Amino acid sequence: MNTGAWSKKALKEAQQHCEVMVSANSESSNFTTIPDYAEWNVDEQAAYLHYTDNETIHGVEFQDVPDFGDIPLVCDMSSNILSRAIDVSKFGIIYAGSQKNMGPAGVTIVIVRDDLIGHADKRIPSVFDYEQQLKNDSMLNTPATFNWYLVGLVLKWMKQEGGIVAMEQRNQVKAGKLYQAIEASSLYSNPVDKKYRSRMNVPFVLANAELDKTFLELAEKKGLSALKGHRSVGGMRASIYNAMPEAGVDALIDFMQEFERTHG
Amino acid sequence: MNTGAWSKKALKEAQQHCEVMVSANSESSNFTTIPDYAEWNVDEQAAYLHYTDNETIHGVEFQDVPDFGDIPLVCDMSSNILSRAIDVSKFGIIYAGSQKNMGPAGVTIVIVRDDLIGHADKRIPSVFDYEQQLKNDSMLNTPATFNWYLVGLVLKWMKQEGGIVAMEQRNQVKAGKLYQAIEASSLYSNPVDKKYRSRMNVPFVLANAELDKTFLELAEKKGLSALKGHRSVGGMRASIYNAMPEAGVDALIDFMQEFERTHG
Repeated sequence: MNTGAWSKKALKEAQQHCEVMVSANSESSNFTTIPDYAEWNVDEQAAYLHYTDNETIHGVEFQDVPDFGDIPLVCDMSSNILSRAIDVSKFGIIYAGSQKNMGPAGVTIVIVRDDLIGHADKRIPSVFDYEQQLKNDSMLNTPATFNWYLVGLVLKWMKQEGGIVAMEQRNQVKAGKLYQAIEASSLYSNPVDKKYRSRMNVPFVLANAELDKTFLELAEKKGLSALKGHRSVGGMRASIYNAMPEAGVDALIDFMQEFERTHG
Repeated sequence: MNTGAWSKKALKEAQQHCEVMVSANSESSNFTTIPDYAEWNVDEQAAYLHYTDNETIHGVEFQDVPDFGDIPLVCDMSSNILSRAIDVSKFGIIYAGSQKNMGPAGVTIVIVRDDLIGHADKRIPSVFDYEQQLKNDSMLNTPATFNWYLVGLVLKWMKQEGGIVAMEQRNQVKAGKLYQAIEASSLYSNPVDKKYRSRMNVPFVLANAELDKTFLELAEKKGLSALKGHRSVGGMRASIYNAMPEAGVDALIDFMQEFERTHG
């Protein structure tokens, strides 16, 4: 599936190792939607079906799990794992970098269905061979120990806060408020199909792009940082991962409304 | 070169990618020495010559840089980089995990000669393709940012302490003292050829292996931890990387001498 910048990178990487067929592609819409499952052109002989659950740059997120029968699903959940409940049994492989909802960068979590282990190409470096990692309790190489420890602390914090259920509720509230504020405004807009808007990354553009610089400068003064959108889409992007409290989203909305009153 | 546990792992890994010829092998001595360069059987057509500068488990370390003309040297310096001055220009590739002398685990430093970049097998994952990493300022993937930061702090600390010259002097003093104490004892011994003893990892065995457990327990009580040798060689191992002060080595020697008086 080619549904954003990360899907596209995954496709390119896969082409070095196997024959790749693109079953669905939203690039022509500048990745502002996800094609309906009914339109996906999935080869029944495919070894697996790969997709990216949430696209950080384009702000597009799958809202459920595609079902193509026995074809194993391989899913990049780097940017939305632990943000909502998922049925792990529906997947062949789930992989996710730690750096969004789990802890600092430097750890990758991989969940692999037992029967998919043991088929690695012998030319793949051993650290990427799940069979060898399994046999060595994920310590074939020296792991990033301090990062593991920090991920452990984050998981304990999550449990104390009410676990995945609490995270999911908070993320719905946070994203709901922010999209509502954007919809209610005549200065801000979000180009993404409402059905597939991300609860993690909310991109938005100003009606007048010449105001972008002022917006970012004033936001920074209010302690609202890292709001600049990726250069491939422009505008702004609010990343509201688990670690962002509702009060942070409220502060952003207050600032956006004030900015619209004074500059809109 | 097969001169210890890490060389052996590197050989096995390389066999998945190319035809491997073992030019020198000290396994029959249980890796207690390094064959003289004159005895190395190096194929003049070899694409590169790989060796491990310091073997952590066996306590064997190269004392200079082998010279085989135009054949590029590829060297694993994971466990002794930054412990002594090296002439980087003599190497094709130097690589080193950060977790011994540079910082926490999770970062790998690679120094590659310009002309060796750009020849990666297309089936090697992009993160291991030095050309792609170079083009992306080592940030093709999201790097372990906090670990990078900590490595930076360690490098600043090193500079404040007098740099590589100071580190090398300290390591010579620390290792010199410890080997001298072992030599002067009738309870402790080190099996490694004196010419190739490591300044980073000092393995030693007790004349009576039944005392090992008591030695480790009493050492732990004195705050001397992680002295147990690797199971493949038994006995003890003192790892005295840059972060170990001379006072730590002195405390170990004091304890060893006391233990010999009371249990020897």
